[in-house]
Amino acid sequence: MSNTKVLPLLEPETVAPCCPPLTERPFTAEEAERTAKMFKALGDPVRLRLFSAVASHEGGEACVCDISDVGVSQPTVSHHLKKLKEAGLLTSERRGTWVYYRVEPSVLAAMGKLLTLPPAA
Amino acid sequence: MSNTKVLPLLEPETVAPCCPPLTERPFTAEEAERTAKMFKALGDPVRLRLFSAVASHEGGEACVCDISDVGVSQPTVSHHLKKLKEAGLLTSERRGTWVYYRVEPSVLAAMGKLLTLPPAA
Repeated sequence: MSNTKVLPLLEPETVAPCCPPLTERPFTAEEAERTAKMFKALGDPVRLRLFSAVASHEGGEACVCDISDVGVSQPTVSHHLKKLKEAGLLTSERRGTWVYYRVEPSVLAAMGKLLTLPPAA
Repeated sequence: MSNTKVLPLLEPETVAPCCPPLTERPFTAEEAERTAKMFKALGDPVRLRLFSAVASHEGGEACVCDISDVGVSQPTVSHHLKKLKEAGLLTSERRGTWVYYRVEPSVLAAMGKLLTLPPAA
């Protein structure tokens, strides 16, 4: 029996930082589709709290057990974490009973870059 | 008759940059409510294209007449620009026939700051 670990494939169209700063030139329809997904994922207060809870947790990762104090049920927490994962903002790994979530730094950096201001003229 | 111009009042709860980086500590419910609005405003592909069209337009401002080539009707364009304005991302000013929109740099900078990564340990 093989002990090889099968790594999940990343989906480039959701996680790959794709686009120049929003202030550089008008986005194409395709760029806007890809980028809006990431902003939309953070456009919900509960998701934003969960994202912040994971992002600021010790070691940069957290399991559902660590971050369930946002006033919604655990299935709702799991649902929102899944949405953040689909948007490429979080990655996850099962270890024993729990699934651990971690912020994807490259995606966070790419979103930050989108919001870069143009140099003063 | 007075010629005094009445300036619209800013709404501090929507436009004021409020919060530390998402990676610094878990957001409170109130912080998440305020911040999610800004992300949500950019979480729609058409709004993101319009925002990018304004942000990248010559002189940092654009009127509806400049940015109507995103494949939706002009009332829809106006609707989305209003949403971006309500989120504090754009400001507007009427000059003659047209309303001109401009990116609010402080809000863009605040959103960028929210996405700041923590310093490497």
